[in-house]
Amino acid sequence: MQTDEQQERSQGLATQALQHVDSERLRTAITALARYGGRDDGGVARETLSDIDLQARRHLIDRARELGCTVEVDECANLFFRRPGRSDLPPVMTGSHVDTQPVGGKLDGAYGVLAGLEVVHALQDAGLQTQRPIEVVVWTNEEGSRFGPGCMGSSAYVDPSRLAAYRAVRDSQQISFGEAVDRALQAIPDVPRRPSKQPLAGFIELHIEQGPVLETAGVPLGVVTGIQSVRWYSVKVTGLAAHAGTTPMDSRADAMAACIRMAHRLYAEAAQHEASGLRLTLGRWTVGPNSVNTIPGEVEFTIDMRCVDETVLATFDATMRDTLRAQAGPTSVTLTPIFERKPTHFPATVTALIEEACGRACELAGKPRPIALTSGAFHDAMYLADHCPTAMLFVPSMRGISHNAAEETDHADLVLGAQALAYAVTRMAGA
Amino acid sequence: MQTDEQQERSQGLATQALQHVDSERLRTAITALARYGGRDDGGVARETLSDIDLQARRHLIDRARELGCTVEVDECANLFFRRPGRSDLPPVMTGSHVDTQPVGGKLDGAYGVLAGLEVVHALQDAGLQTQRPIEVVVWTNEEGSRFGPGCMGSSAYVDPSRLAAYRAVRDSQQISFGEAVDRALQAIPDVPRRPSKQPLAGFIELHIEQGPVLETAGVPLGVVTGIQSVRWYSVKVTGLAAHAGTTPMDSRADAMAACIRMAHRLYAEAAQHEASGLRLTLGRWTVGPNSVNTIPGEVEFTIDMRCVDETVLATFDATMRDTLRAQAGPTSVTLTPIFERKPTHFPATVTALIEEACGRACELAGKPRPIALTSGAFHDAMYLADHCPTAMLFVPSMRGISHNAAEETDHADLVLGAQALAYAVTRMAGA
Repeated sequence: MQTDEQQERSQGLATQALQHVDSERLRTAITALARYGGRDDGGVARETLSDIDLQARRHLIDRARELGCTVEVDECANLFFRRPGRSDLPPVMTGSHVDTQPVGGKLDGAYGVLAGLEVVHALQDAGLQTQRPIEVVVWTNEEGSRFGPGCMGSSAYVDPSRLAAYRAVRDSQQISFGEAVDRALQAIPDVPRRPSKQPLAGFIELHIEQGPVLETAGVPLGVVTGIQSVRWYSVKVTGLAAHAGTTPMDSRADAMAACIRMAHRLYAEAAQHEASGLRLTLGRWTVGPNSVNTIPGEVEFTIDMRCVDETVLATFDATMRDTLRAQAGPTSVTLTPIFERKPTHFPATVTALIEEACGRACELAGKPRPIALTSGAFHDAMYLADHCPTAMLFVPSMRGISHNAAEETDHADLVLGAQALAYAVTRMAGA
Repeated sequence: MQTDEQQERSQGLATQALQHVDSERLRTAITALARYGGRDDGGVARETLSDIDLQARRHLIDRARELGCTVEVDECANLFFRRPGRSDLPPVMTGSHVDTQPVGGKLDGAYGVLAGLEVVHALQDAGLQTQRPIEVVVWTNEEGSRFGPGCMGSSAYVDPSRLAAYRAVRDSQQISFGEAVDRALQAIPDVPRRPSKQPLAGFIELHIEQGPVLETAGVPLGVVTGIQSVRWYSVKVTGLAAHAGTTPMDSRADAMAACIRMAHRLYAEAAQHEASGLRLTLGRWTVGPNSVNTIPGEVEFTIDMRCVDETVLATFDATMRDTLRAQAGPTSVTLTPIFERKPTHFPATVTALIEEACGRACELAGKPRPIALTSGAFHDAMYLADHCPTAMLFVPSMRGISHNAAEETDHADLVLGAQALAYAVTRMAGA
């Protein structure tokens, strides 16, 4: 336990770090990184471990070294930029990822890494050395679009036994993740290797929200209390393809008509749980034979259901199974689970620190107080939470748009997020 | 008007023709034609004007000549096999088509042509010469799968001005229908050309039902009273693609959720008209971006609505438009008509003759009486009905299956259909 005096001193130093965050320097850093894969429409195409991604990594290594950081890399090509502390205690880690969807924006992931480097810069400018080292991490393959699943780097960091299976995954060009990682490592012979799964004092990830909650609430910062649980299913409905003109309605086994009944009922059931934040998406549909004048004989669709309350999700899951059975009519239905992830609840000690940091940043800027929210998207912090005290903070996404060239955040909010990060990291690292 | 005595004599001669239909000869003819494009699974792949189709046409020309028919061809490559009558009055025409879907069955179309040739054979065997000539026709491109639309041959026959536009249509190999027709005509230099749109005493088309109505009713023959009207639409629903995890339910413009509401309501509305035989099929669906964890931003689906009662169809059409508007929610909807065809009502004089013919065939075979039904599919008879007294008769399709290698009809029913055709044609041609 800190004494009141210690705490006040720590808060004062963290506020100093916060105040040395430089708005223009952050803007320049974001613009510079966005050139790697940048497109005319403002989007960024920088899939994981592509040539462009390797160039971006080199750019970041050079920047980190200029800031006096030591640079290391692990077997999954995660990069670690370390600012020494007064001790060799386990470091406080921040950062995110710099890979993008095939076409993404300039902020998703990249903002968290660049804000981490800005924190290091701010600490230099403030002349502060923290007790614990601070590390800014660049996780490999968060997006999962080139090699699935996503979050390979962070999940292999906390459980290195995952790496062997990941290395075998191939992209659409038949290049394996293992080959791509080896190539990335060969491209930086000057960077020493280090083992994964090292002890950490904590991990704090700053990210754009990728949803509309903060914008709608009119607040610039959000304290993320957890990440929703999710279940993915594939539903296959088999009827009988037949002539749309010659087959009477009562003789049909119309697979699409059955799916419409199921989906309609599922949306109605989901609405019952809206207060609990249940989210239902029927995103991918394949209809066969998919012809104007043929009754659909086979339809497959996916269910993506999410809720921060695992009990609500389990209840809805049971209702979903009943609904599929009840609405099948003359068709047959098979349900295949394709993914499941339990909810992540960030520990109250860390979310309290994030709230303090966000509150301080907002207070100094004369902005509305931060709100608490849950993350609907996955993040590297989801895996780090299995390993060390972890939390996240969000800045707003304009119109909730992400994974899109139109992804954007007001620069003042980006600065505020970096300020809150500087405060939180400094407090956790012990100034 | 015929006197009772004339009518009795005509019925007696028609019955003679009926009784000379040869079951084994018909079976052999079906098997022989099915070899052109025949597949191991029992299906037939004989798209219009393909090499295989040209070989099948040569086979039919040879058979018709062996039966003493003269053979002629028109500008659309429709083939006419003519058995002279005692007069040169306009002929009675029967027949259908011999092209198939990319993979079809051995009966769709081919059965009507081969039953027509069997009628000619039966008349020969019975030693009967009719007053009017009898022509068996092979219409070009009924299926419309290689070159759209279907029924090119029959529709160009009744309105030759259509041919110029048809000739410009190209298949997936960029071969135009005009080039394919010219090639078909060059392949039969021995067959004299004749103009289209010649006067006809009537047209009678025998076809498999391609639906389950006769099989369900347990009757071997059906008198077709008309062909349903049809309207095709494409519906495009535009919402906003967004992250399935991060976007709260009340912030979504989910294009698929809107389509589910529309479709659910459309099926419910269609059920209100079930007694009128309204048929609704939502057959083709395109969902974008079609990803498990992305809210659909754009969905297109097709509406195929059919009814023999045009008033019911018009009422449902208006309801459909209201429904799309009412259920759009936060999405925008555009409705594009892609096809429309008014209903065909065959004249009572001809359907009465068909009923008499089917009744006689069933009576002699000790089978249940024919029933009346409407055709849900299009047929060449739909266009001939604009030109001369026209009607159709159906034999059952097992399990209603057609456009499929599994298409099948009990051979006894095929024989019964050919017998009824022989009777009807003989009666109409004046024995």
